[in-house]
Amino acid sequence: MHIDLDRHSGRTLTEQIRTAIIDRIQSGLLQEGEKLPSVRSFSSQLEVSQMTVFHAYELLELDGMIERVHGKGTFVRSQSARLPFQDQRSAKPSMDWQNRVADYLPRVQYWRMMMQTPLLDVAKLTMAALHDSLIPADWISRQLAHYAQEDHTLLTEYGPIQGDSKLREAVLPYFREKSINVTASEIMILNGSQQGIDLVASTFIGPGDCVVLEEPVYPCTIDVFRKRGATIYTVPIDDEGMCVDQLAALCDTRPPKLIYTNPTYQNPTGTVMSARRRAQLLELAQSYHSIILEDDATSDLYFGDPPPPPIKSLDKYGHVIYLKGISKMISPGCRIGFLIADGTFIARLIGAKGISDLGTPLITQKALLPFFMSSQLKKHLPFLREKLKQRRNLVLRTLHKLAPAGVNWSKPDGGLSIWVTLPATMNAEELHTYAMKEGISFLPGHVCFPVQQQYHHFRICFSYLDEPLLEQAVTTLCRVLREFVQSNRHSQQVISM
Amino acid sequence: MHIDLDRHSGRTLTEQIRTAIIDRIQSGLLQEGEKLPSVRSFSSQLEVSQMTVFHAYELLELDGMIERVHGKGTFVRSQSARLPFQDQRSAKPSMDWQNRVADYLPRVQYWRMMMQTPLLDVAKLTMAALHDSLIPADWISRQLAHYAQEDHTLLTEYGPIQGDSKLREAVLPYFREKSINVTASEIMILNGSQQGIDLVASTFIGPGDCVVLEEPVYPCTIDVFRKRGATIYTVPIDDEGMCVDQLAALCDTRPPKLIYTNPTYQNPTGTVMSARRRAQLLELAQSYHSIILEDDATSDLYFGDPPPPPIKSLDKYGHVIYLKGISKMISPGCRIGFLIADGTFIARLIGAKGISDLGTPLITQKALLPFFMSSQLKKHLPFLREKLKQRRNLVLRTLHKLAPAGVNWSKPDGGLSIWVTLPATMNAEELHTYAMKEGISFLPGHVCFPVQQQYHHFRICFSYLDEPLLEQAVTTLCRVLREFVQSNRHSQQVISM
Repeated sequence: MHIDLDRHSGRTLTEQIRTAIIDRIQSGLLQEGEKLPSVRSFSSQLEVSQMTVFHAYELLELDGMIERVHGKGTFVRSQSARLPFQDQRSAKPSMDWQNRVADYLPRVQYWRMMMQTPLLDVAKLTMAALHDSLIPADWISRQLAHYAQEDHTLLTEYGPIQGDSKLREAVLPYFREKSINVTASEIMILNGSQQGIDLVASTFIGPGDCVVLEEPVYPCTIDVFRKRGATIYTVPIDDEGMCVDQLAALCDTRPPKLIYTNPTYQNPTGTVMSARRRAQLLELAQSYHSIILEDDATSDLYFGDPPPPPIKSLDKYGHVIYLKGISKMISPGCRIGFLIADGTFIARLIGAKGISDLGTPLITQKALLPFFMSSQLKKHLPFLREKLKQRRNLVLRTLHKLAPAGVNWSKPDGGLSIWVTLPATMNAEELHTYAMKEGISFLPGHVCFPVQQQYHHFRICFSYLDEPLLEQAVTTLCRVLREFVQSNRHSQQVISM
Repeated sequence: MHIDLDRHSGRTLTEQIRTAIIDRIQSGLLQEGEKLPSVRSFSSQLEVSQMTVFHAYELLELDGMIERVHGKGTFVRSQSARLPFQDQRSAKPSMDWQNRVADYLPRVQYWRMMMQTPLLDVAKLTMAALHDSLIPADWISRQLAHYAQEDHTLLTEYGPIQGDSKLREAVLPYFREKSINVTASEIMILNGSQQGIDLVASTFIGPGDCVVLEEPVYPCTIDVFRKRGATIYTVPIDDEGMCVDQLAALCDTRPPKLIYTNPTYQNPTGTVMSARRRAQLLELAQSYHSIILEDDATSDLYFGDPPPPPIKSLDKYGHVIYLKGISKMISPGCRIGFLIADGTFIARLIGAKGISDLGTPLITQKALLPFFMSSQLKKHLPFLREKLKQRRNLVLRTLHKLAPAGVNWSKPDGGLSIWVTLPATMNAEELHTYAMKEGISFLPGHVCFPVQQQYHHFRICFSYLDEPLLEQAVTTLCRVLREFVQSNRHSQQVISM
């Protein structure tokens, strides 16, 4: 088969061979079932590399024009089997090729969750966020409005990658009250604390690196470490938080590069890690040269005694990278989080932040600045704790009164959510289907298990709905629960008969 | 220390180790005085022979980058005579263990650049950003102040991962004027367009994937793809933009998974890719099932005829992922960018965005919304073009009048910057040292070369300084240039004698 190749046309040789063969097939010069020359003979005939011919054949196979039969050769495909190459293009453009483009997203559970509950008329017990009335939006808005008109630099400047230096200074007293002795140079401002998890993972974790997560854990954390190709191990949680003895056993065989923990009012279980366990965990990290990623979204939201100080407050040798999000205590709209790290870690993470987005917007940083510089935070937090405590009590009372026997739930001393456990044979995702029909959504617990999924838990949040709606939603949920438990018991009896 | 070695790249392993370590030292990830791994441990970690590491260290010593101290080990060379490194640390608890924690940041050149020029009294010809007077900060601030007080949802809600639906609707007419026929569902709102490059890379590119960059290219792009472990190939730029015939030749042997291009007023050269080349590039991507990442920051900033429509406007089969940043045309403080993609690509990228930061802040999105919904953009752009054209003319006039013979520069028809080329034997980084002493900074061009660095170019931006300061800075620069060229010529004569 002769093909005229033009070596100065700007079109690749592969492409010229490909179109020449398509032309010959479509014009009938090459017939169905006809055998094409071998890669070796064709390449020497055309005086091109074998790779060029090989690639042309590969493309022609994707085009559906030819097929390669192992051990026999390459043949023109029959017309019926052939994809309508030209016609397809003229009718509706096909983007099928995209499906063959590999990506590095093993799971995107968070996005999936968000897509599943966009319904407006559903009472979202799903949302681990604050109700409008609990957000000092009025105060912040007024300050922002003022700031925006007084100081245009928040629109005209990029701002430092590490974050606005005034805001980094302004938060120091807040962190010092948590016994974290830090300077502004060890703080980086994030576009929400989720970005902190992602930056730490993309800086330090790669394929096969060993990462330990609590079980259960906030689902989006799993997404991040899966995306990095980490080997994930899990350690269960009991009343004192992560079971550090089990972690110690794991460290002996697989020293983790990173241990992720959410020690205070853990999302989703609401558990608080004891002071003793915090110290033990840090000691383990020191022994095994592991990084601890301490995620603290809700330690300010306590309903009785304050929780133990953060693990970061005990850290001497730079093992702990500490994340503080403000979405769950001040405002989610700002998407601001703080990362604290020492030594070379902070420099490396600022480098990673530069690569990732050049820095957090100045506008959102400046929106929060007056809040931290004034006495507002100190006024806001006691108010917020009181309101959240009332809501927690409301939900606990309602569950106590109306939930069926066999269902258990956590009694958290702080945070935003309650973890409900069904009898082990029941499936909370199935329950969710029923609940949604009654206008209630919650978070089915299996998405919080990184390795071995458990299906009989779910999370409800008491922070997002207003109180009357919250009471109504939990009451309805209890009704659905009773019916669900009853019908499950009934069907089990049927099966066991 | 982690180094991605490509065993099929045609570059020796010794050379790959050498350049990886130079990258880390130059970007500040490896600090002065830091100890490198022993030959034996490094070779076993990298799975290469001890000879390979030994040679790399030998070359690095010749480069003046490291020094081997007999009986102690190999260290990053310190620039000053004394080594206060250890002493400094002994006061504080030792965080040395951190240096043994490998990371995945082969280079962080952008961060390094930003750290190098924080001086206040330097006229920054470096900054590819707009001067305050060119930013409609007053109008946007007033709207934002109004919005913040009227609608508290911008503080109380997370907003969708994909971005505010009203803003995605509001920008449709703007994109349609660029002949990009898009729906709101195919747009994602970013935290600045840099985030778009990072998301596309972290979604589609992994170790060894073949990525093509223009040469020279915006430095932070190199950081992103290096971080993903991509095998980077480069294609030079001529007057018509990327040399597509060279790309075609490359495709025959190494079909790229992704081709990054900045076709309009390219950063740093200011070049515009011709309409013919745009079509050819897309054809190549179609043939080889490659993704084109089209980065468009400045196509609105034309000084004469508008440039050809974006490559995205020609895209039928979803090959082009299009990025539009607004920092260089409206406001950098908002950190807003738009990503346009079709088919399964947009869904995958939204998933990646969720993992990365749960979504762009509502505040910054709402700050821009009125600007796109009103006639402001249409009023702002002609004003901005006229002002930038005046500045470009001012700089070209000054260069023409005062720059020494042998120095050449681009005459861009749009954008923010001019690319200056010295005689090939001269070093723009050396020139920069002199210029900084005279209070002038610019971007030394070698950071824009991903593989084989060229040292005789630099970039100056005419957008950031006010006009009198700009004229003064360029005048001073020309004086420094004359002295530099003269002393270089002189020393060359001395050598040749």
